[in-house]
Amino acid sequence: MKKRIFLSACMAGLLSTAFSAEPIQVIQPVQNINLAQVELGKKLYFDPRLSKSGFISCNSCHNLSMGGTDNLPTSIGHGWAQGPINAPTVLNSSMNVAQFWDGRARDLKEQAGGPIANPGEMASNHSLAVDVLKSIPGYVREFKLVYGDDSISIDRVTQAIAEFEKSLVTPNSRFDQWLLGKQDALTEKELAGYRLFKESGCTGCHNGPAVGGNSFQKMGVIEPYHTRNSAKGRAAVTGKDADRFMFKVPTLRNVELTYPYFHDGAAKTLTEAVDIMGRLQLGRKFTPEENARIVAFLKTLTGQQPQFVIPILPPSVDTTPEPRPFE
Amino acid sequence: MKKRIFLSACMAGLLSTAFSAEPIQVIQPVQNINLAQVELGKKLYFDPRLSKSGFISCNSCHNLSMGGTDNLPTSIGHGWAQGPINAPTVLNSSMNVAQFWDGRARDLKEQAGGPIANPGEMASNHSLAVDVLKSIPGYVREFKLVYGDDSISIDRVTQAIAEFEKSLVTPNSRFDQWLLGKQDALTEKELAGYRLFKESGCTGCHNGPAVGGNSFQKMGVIEPYHTRNSAKGRAAVTGKDADRFMFKVPTLRNVELTYPYFHDGAAKTLTEAVDIMGRLQLGRKFTPEENARIVAFLKTLTGQQPQFVIPILPPSVDTTPEPRPFE
Repeated sequence: MKKRIFLSACMAGLLSTAFSAEPIQVIQPVQNINLAQVELGKKLYFDPRLSKSGFISCNSCHNLSMGGTDNLPTSIGHGWAQGPINAPTVLNSSMNVAQFWDGRARDLKEQAGGPIANPGEMASNHSLAVDVLKSIPGYVREFKLVYGDDSISIDRVTQAIAEFEKSLVTPNSRFDQWLLGKQDALTEKELAGYRLFKESGCTGCHNGPAVGGNSFQKMGVIEPYHTRNSAKGRAAVTGKDADRFMFKVPTLRNVELTYPYFHDGAAKTLTEAVDIMGRLQLGRKFTPEENARIVAFLKTLTGQQPQFVIPILPPSVDTTPEPRPFE
Repeated sequence: MKKRIFLSACMAGLLSTAFSAEPIQVIQPVQNINLAQVELGKKLYFDPRLSKSGFISCNSCHNLSMGGTDNLPTSIGHGWAQGPINAPTVLNSSMNVAQFWDGRARDLKEQAGGPIANPGEMASNHSLAVDVLKSIPGYVREFKLVYGDDSISIDRVTQAIAEFEKSLVTPNSRFDQWLLGKQDALTEKELAGYRLFKESGCTGCHNGPAVGGNSFQKMGVIEPYHTRNSAKGRAAVTGKDADRFMFKVPTLRNVELTYPYFHDGAAKTLTEAVDIMGRLQLGRKFTPEENARIVAFLKTLTGQQPQFVIPILPPSVDTTPEPRPFE
């Protein structure tokens, strides 16, 4: 019996070395991806011709130079429309339990079709977007290369965009280096922040490789959250009153880059976000020192940003439907 | 005497080989550039925080995925303002005699300051733009690296952007390969188009390495050009009535990518642009076959597009002035 206990402890030690004892796990580099689809999807992600105006692309609001966000409280859409909700980061979004704050899209592919046809975002429609692509010889050839025939459909368009988005993971943050055994990857203050993050209960929702993104939780558990934003959260999808203000827990990966925070973008700084989360979700008022420690820890979650050559888009031709920015 | 004639013919042959006999010359790859400034300038070029909204960067209207233009008749600015004139390509713009259609900026550095402070474009001002950059530690460090001290000024900002823009040349088009001796780089039709382009007098204005960009000429020489666009051309700079409708001759490099055409963006296709130019500037009505030949030649001017890794921008911090998109 003694031997068995010893063995179990030993196993636990091994597991701990393999970082499974921590509530946050290492982000795995991309393991299984179709590179031809990624290259096509990258072009589509950067192509403003998927919008009515010819001015707005996926990258406009999920800007890969800026942590996969637009760093605005809510986004700017067609005609300078003010968006209803904060644009979540596209980085590591393949790890989300579902897409959008309310989870109304099952996966990245389903998500990608939304903004294209949303009148307040890209303001096009799937039929027009596909017609634009069908008219462009460079795209026709690339769809044929990627899918084996020259049919272009919204299904393939969103599938390719989703495949590109799956490539947008950010491994090798200092925190991941620490998880992988580099003991000096974090400072004392950052480690203290991580311990406090765990002990306070933050990891109850912010856990897993993405440090969030894997559940829906109520915004305002202990105290209600006051906002002028009208988003209902998960209730908009389920129709259930119990789901009001249930939002997808955002990933904290790269959170240093994805300001401002919350679904309404109302928290301008990490300090503010940590303070509000502590009070509203955990009933805990962090001291300025505690808050600073947690913020220091959060900044260690900034990973290696996706590095790729800017895509060159195939040009339109005489028959390509024109953008209509001012209609 | 006979010998001298032979020698001269020989010399002419040599000169032709060295392509100096052609009115269009090869684009030289970048020969003398400060790479540290290029890297900084690239970040600034892609940084929407130089705009009031935090949404518009240089790359929004001079999109390096799309021939250095926005492919719109006139651009979209702050608050969805409709711009007054077609956004010229940034590609090879270092070869221009001056910048803007009316040449009101002497060089790229002087140009770069314009849109930042234009209320209908990026709608910021130089003082605010500099304050934003000064607040960002990543920029402070990079300015220090590049310029030797941590002073950040609009002078340095525009200088770095201009240095990046100098790197945006597009060598190695099929036409350049032909100029450099690869005889089969062009088809018969393309060569016939080039001969017609020369014989008709197009090269009177569209010449040099950039196939334009090196002079101001009147839009509508033989017949007047009718447009609802109110731009006065060079007269807006000189105040001279004689300069009315004198515009900088645009480069034809990458013209396949830089649609629509003319200062008002009114010509949607190359076919239309060639037809109008023939009639208005040269008094010549090209047949459909002639037009198609010239268009075929023009498409050989598409060069190698700048290839670079998408820049990752240093994040704002708590003290960074916020974007104000809806004010």
